[in-house]
Amino acid sequence: MINEAMYALGDEPSAIRELFAYGLKRKAEIGDDKVFDFSIGNPSVPAPAAVKEAILALMEEDPVTLHGYSPAAGDPQVKQVIADAISRKFGVTATPGQLYLTAGAAAGLAISIAALTHPGDEVLVISPYFPEYKTWIEAAGCTIVEVPAQVPSFQIDTEAVAAAITPKTSAVIVNSPNNPVGAVYTRENLEALATVLREAEERLGRPIYLISDEPYREITYGAEVPYVPAIYPRTLVCYSYSKALSLPGERIGYIYVSDAMPDARDVAVAVAGAGRALGYVCAPVLLQKAIARVVDVPSDVAAYAENRRLLTEGLAQLGYEFVQPDGAFYLWVRALEPDAQAFSERAKGFELLLVPSNSFGCEGWVRISYCVSADTIKGAMPAFKALKESYEQE
Amino acid sequence: MINEAMYALGDEPSAIRELFAYGLKRKAEIGDDKVFDFSIGNPSVPAPAAVKEAILALMEEDPVTLHGYSPAAGDPQVKQVIADAISRKFGVTATPGQLYLTAGAAAGLAISIAALTHPGDEVLVISPYFPEYKTWIEAAGCTIVEVPAQVPSFQIDTEAVAAAITPKTSAVIVNSPNNPVGAVYTRENLEALATVLREAEERLGRPIYLISDEPYREITYGAEVPYVPAIYPRTLVCYSYSKALSLPGERIGYIYVSDAMPDARDVAVAVAGAGRALGYVCAPVLLQKAIARVVDVPSDVAAYAENRRLLTEGLAQLGYEFVQPDGAFYLWVRALEPDAQAFSERAKGFELLLVPSNSFGCEGWVRISYCVSADTIKGAMPAFKALKESYEQE
Repeated sequence: MINEAMYALGDEPSAIRELFAYGLKRKAEIGDDKVFDFSIGNPSVPAPAAVKEAILALMEEDPVTLHGYSPAAGDPQVKQVIADAISRKFGVTATPGQLYLTAGAAAGLAISIAALTHPGDEVLVISPYFPEYKTWIEAAGCTIVEVPAQVPSFQIDTEAVAAAITPKTSAVIVNSPNNPVGAVYTRENLEALATVLREAEERLGRPIYLISDEPYREITYGAEVPYVPAIYPRTLVCYSYSKALSLPGERIGYIYVSDAMPDARDVAVAVAGAGRALGYVCAPVLLQKAIARVVDVPSDVAAYAENRRLLTEGLAQLGYEFVQPDGAFYLWVRALEPDAQAFSERAKGFELLLVPSNSFGCEGWVRISYCVSADTIKGAMPAFKALKESYEQE
Repeated sequence: MINEAMYALGDEPSAIRELFAYGLKRKAEIGDDKVFDFSIGNPSVPAPAAVKEAILALMEEDPVTLHGYSPAAGDPQVKQVIADAISRKFGVTATPGQLYLTAGAAAGLAISIAALTHPGDEVLVISPYFPEYKTWIEAAGCTIVEVPAQVPSFQIDTEAVAAAITPKTSAVIVNSPNNPVGAVYTRENLEALATVLREAEERLGRPIYLISDEPYREITYGAEVPYVPAIYPRTLVCYSYSKALSLPGERIGYIYVSDAMPDARDVAVAVAGAGRALGYVCAPVLLQKAIARVVDVPSDVAAYAENRRLLTEGLAQLGYEFVQPDGAFYLWVRALEPDAQAFSERAKGFELLLVPSNSFGCEGWVRISYCVSADTIKGAMPAFKALKESYEQE
């Protein structure tokens, strides 16, 4: 009599985790340097030294205050620091009352979806997409509506979004820089999306919220990442420090309900209520306070930039087709046969662990996580060559 | 078009937080030592020195590994340490696969309820009860069924539980040592409950799960806190280190799905699935790893024991009626008029901040949190005297 939907979620195989587990086993068999594991998005760059310094300094404070409960939405001083940083960085007026600190972007998304929807609503996602979106949308009793991105640019297909909106649409989730593709949505593309959403709001007489999932905002290679609330005011930004500061296991991020939104205060209240309903009490306080001290520390993207160069140059030379990544640390590569899963399986025979695109709601591609050592990329090139040749010899 | 139930939760006044906020304001007006704030359950004893030592030692480890994702259910080594500690302490065989580390007991309860119920089910609680139980039960689409405790022992009224069980009952939540009463359920009381639940399971042909919410397990004053899964195998223990190690803001605890449960593995899978659905990725990893190093460090209850002595002796002398607390840091005192809210209001006139029992689902009492300085208790005694006299003069 346990909940069978929850059982199914707990029992569901994850292609990424299975590939990762296979990699660990395989490395034990033939040696770490013989297996080229591109499965997992765990940052390979260490957290900046300033994070360690902040935590060490905080540990000298009074432990009763340091480790005590913060208000549910976060420590007021920490929220002020983050709001100021948002205001400075994007030239807006962000107020602390519109911030709700979360245990990472996952919590932020689950909470935002619960706050903005009613059972039976539809939530649009741009495919390929991070697979847990489906879990959280369905947990809120809603239906996920997949809108394929344009191929091969993987920008939002705004006409397809317009066609997919119905009177049940309550929210659209975008993720730029994008996991799994590495695309960054251009200003023009986001402006076109905003126009579509505004027209739909007017036509349907109801708000449509934009949820901007931004854990990779700082991981870019020169491209502009436009500030979404300035383009579409009815935006909730779900941010995380997991990737920017290499703290994925610490679970610290925020929801920012844009001050520019007409119903800004009400939405912030609903976010706080959804946090309660989902069992969140406050984001981990030691990390909250550490973040306040490192809010302006830049992300270290040098290693990812070098990996990106090695990988794209190497694969281009071998004749692979891929999406030139503008952000995040993922490369989206065309599978050498239509069935991505079969391609990923064959790649395993060459000790290459590539996540098939089926995991992200589309066919025909694989995701390469290049948050690995440069040696893994260099070592993998002969395997990529042999993999390609195996298809050419058929 | 935001979710109005979530809005209502976010907008709902909390008697405890309002009283606490009033206290801060009042202290600023008349001085910290003039206001006797017994509103909040924030531990006043510092975290043991071993916690600081553990965190400082961990901060010297490789940051990529230290702060990386753990599996959703927790770091395998940490889970092994906790499982071994459970096995040692309670003379059972606890296996790491049955543990799911959580962001505190609140997450553990929300996840357990989601895993064990279907919309429309009923979940029984013993009133007075921690008010968020209602939030999480209703978030799962279920109905809360309040079963009043025996008065004045505040043990479980097992006959009333038997009478309240219906074919829709999927779970019962117990909390011992108890917030807000301070009662510890005796072995006999829990055995009687187990008999009732077993008979109901047989009669109804369905499992009834017991959720044992145990954040105060280590905060006791000599009473035995029986190990619930040994009495009723179909038990999920929701534990937190918040109170035991004075780390409430850090959000670290676990769900232990008893190995002794017939459907132990299936329930653990459903728990993992519910964690995904509610947006939990993993419990904060730095704290996970710190806990593994301090798992046998005893709680420091000396200050609470002294507060308990001062408070119970002082109030007894003044003629107040209260429940002798065996655990936690709460004293449950009979209001001097039937309307607890009016009594709490009048107490404010004497600068005494006492939480009315309405907040916990019953009438006629107030909760005193004695996780305060001893000086607060000593200073409050004349105010308690004057409060009592104000009723006698009527």
